[in-house]
Amino acid sequence: MSTAISPLAPTNVPDMLAIDGVRLATAEAGIRYSGRTDVLLALFDPGTAAAGVFTRSKCPSAPVEWCRAHLKGGKSAKNLARALVVNSGNANAFTGKSGRASTKLTADITAKAAGCKAAEIFLASTGVIGEPLDAGKFGPVMDDLVMRAKPGDFLAAAQAIMTTDTFPKVATARARIGKATVTINGIAKGAGMIAPDMATMLSFLFTDAAISAPALQALLKEGVADTFNAVTVDGDTSTSDTLMLFATGKAAGCPRIARAGDPRLKDFRKALTAVLANLSEQIARDGEGARKLIEVVVEGAVSKISARRIALSIANSPLVKTAVGGEDANWGRVVMAVGKAGEPANRDKLSIWFGGIRVAHKGARDPAYNEAAVSAAMKKPEISVKVALGLGKGRDRVLTCDLTKEYIAINGDYRS
Amino acid sequence: MSTAISPLAPTNVPDMLAIDGVRLATAEAGIRYSGRTDVLLALFDPGTAAAGVFTRSKCPSAPVEWCRAHLKGGKSAKNLARALVVNSGNANAFTGKSGRASTKLTADITAKAAGCKAAEIFLASTGVIGEPLDAGKFGPVMDDLVMRAKPGDFLAAAQAIMTTDTFPKVATARARIGKATVTINGIAKGAGMIAPDMATMLSFLFTDAAISAPALQALLKEGVADTFNAVTVDGDTSTSDTLMLFATGKAAGCPRIARAGDPRLKDFRKALTAVLANLSEQIARDGEGARKLIEVVVEGAVSKISARRIALSIANSPLVKTAVGGEDANWGRVVMAVGKAGEPANRDKLSIWFGGIRVAHKGARDPAYNEAAVSAAMKKPEISVKVALGLGKGRDRVLTCDLTKEYIAINGDYRS
Repeated sequence: MSTAISPLAPTNVPDMLAIDGVRLATAEAGIRYSGRTDVLLALFDPGTAAAGVFTRSKCPSAPVEWCRAHLKGGKSAKNLARALVVNSGNANAFTGKSGRASTKLTADITAKAAGCKAAEIFLASTGVIGEPLDAGKFGPVMDDLVMRAKPGDFLAAAQAIMTTDTFPKVATARARIGKATVTINGIAKGAGMIAPDMATMLSFLFTDAAISAPALQALLKEGVADTFNAVTVDGDTSTSDTLMLFATGKAAGCPRIARAGDPRLKDFRKALTAVLANLSEQIARDGEGARKLIEVVVEGAVSKISARRIALSIANSPLVKTAVGGEDANWGRVVMAVGKAGEPANRDKLSIWFGGIRVAHKGARDPAYNEAAVSAAMKKPEISVKVALGLGKGRDRVLTCDLTKEYIAINGDYRS
Repeated sequence: MSTAISPLAPTNVPDMLAIDGVRLATAEAGIRYSGRTDVLLALFDPGTAAAGVFTRSKCPSAPVEWCRAHLKGGKSAKNLARALVVNSGNANAFTGKSGRASTKLTADITAKAAGCKAAEIFLASTGVIGEPLDAGKFGPVMDDLVMRAKPGDFLAAAQAIMTTDTFPKVATARARIGKATVTINGIAKGAGMIAPDMATMLSFLFTDAAISAPALQALLKEGVADTFNAVTVDGDTSTSDTLMLFATGKAAGCPRIARAGDPRLKDFRKALTAVLANLSEQIARDGEGARKLIEVVVEGAVSKISARRIALSIANSPLVKTAVGGEDANWGRVVMAVGKAGEPANRDKLSIWFGGIRVAHKGARDPAYNEAAVSAAMKKPEISVKVALGLGKGRDRVLTCDLTKEYIAINGDYRS
């Protein structure tokens, strides 16, 4: 397995301000790894609202089922959280009854140590699928975690939840709500949807804004549509994908917002989307074996939904992804991917750009295109593929990465 | 690009009997390759019925549009064919108006040489996408092709239509219709759906049975459902997929069959399915970079359609395909692929077998499974992955191949 940092990793790590009402601690519980942290505890002050979105897999992991059950659809103002426990090394997925028992035991251990109810604790696990998670391992470290928890080290938190990630992912933004300034911090882990036995995209956001749980849920659902839901590495959907947002309400002078439609959320909404976009882009930048970040833009579709489907068809096509990896502006494969999407498309109206250079126009090769300019564009680490369908006003954008031999090595060679 | 023959190639090439009423010839037209044949002409005696199924791509190639237009939905008893022209080296796909002009010119050249109508000629092209096809190149060779055409060399025909295929694909079967014995011969080419600029799965079947065009169309449609439509290499759909069946009616004593429901077709139906299954399996065996043939069986689904969707989700998952390539019985990835299919599935009822050995049962690892036995099974060139959902009686089977570094090399490295 490669341990080199992705060449697409961001060069700057932002300063992550503490969030009032959030305390963090990490530890080595020895779930699977040695010599690295593998458990993250986040403690929240009373009154912290919780929201979450999860994998659409029909075979979700036990922690996903736990969180869903306690969020009750996200519509209750009583969705409050006192703690979040995340472990790496074992996904607690496809572990049957023992998986459910593990989540309960983890919550019970944490509730006892933190002095709250098990129902106020949210859980996530990432790592091997199908192996029982020995939640007993949290026992010896939990009291110490609660004691050590302190405002602030989001980078260490991001490190504790990594699996095949080659770099920790953090992002931050500030926003005005009324006269108050609030902070939104996020951490994420990604890589493949399921790496060498490793499951999952996980992300957790924390804010000191005062927003009710139902409003928070609505904001999160809205925010993921064009960020986390518009990123694909290999088209494979994990059993464990989890994205949660916690709002402590501790920001000085922050008005309490009850509804997502409140106009005072305008700036917060923008900042939240920025953090979600930043983290999800980092996941594409750390796709297993990624050497190129690919932005797929589809415009002129009959609707935004249609544009999304076509963009995903392009972004998930192994032939498009290998072509970009090979630095080839192979627009024939883009046509193929448009054609297979099953959405309205007219071959004779299609135009295609690579790196901003039009290579195909109205159903045939663009006679004016300059091979040397396109070749130069394809050598860059960030490649844009744009398709104009010429049918309507539907537009969408999806991020992905190329498909390389390194992906095969990470996912196929690990046993040899 | 690799030129080594796939390790999964069949070891025996069957004897291909001549089909009365079919004459074949191949030539080097210099479309793209040098030193190899790249055009196939098949001439049919008057009265030969034609049927065809084509890509579902919304951006089909010009030859696909030509064939579709002349088959008129396959419902007319007047769907007769006098010739088939297939070229490799250029797919005539995404070539705009010049593509349509090329098909017309090819048909006109052939009609003149063969002494028939252009509408009785069917066309297929495979190779580069987006480059104009210079149909003028058929002119100098066509008279000679017509003159040389003779019963029989199906292997040479299969060779002329290859692109990234590592071996020619032929299959044959005999069947009784009434008191007559008829023959069905088929040729095919596959590899990736679109290999290094090369488009397409093409297959052509020929029989001396006397079956009306509408009945032939119905038989073909029925026959592909569990054969060609149940094979996937990379989930990418070509702009050019074409499968045609021609029936000359020349078999001695063969009754003329007008309806697909005629009970006298029982044996023919079976033989046709066998030829289709054989050819489509050869395509999976020659998937780009394939080192393992993977049979995915799904049973206990709520319906056959649901089983098919789940089987395709497994067969198209890069993570499943790389795991099999790495000889790892990674059932966690199978669970993932079941979960992402969007079909009814209950994690706690799932059982999974690799190579006939049950590795997971009722939502958790099978405690009885023998790691050494599974490891030995995974080293074989043919791997069966079976999933039992425990919900209903829906069952289906799909063939695919593993995803290897060689696939990336074929599809990504060809420019370097």
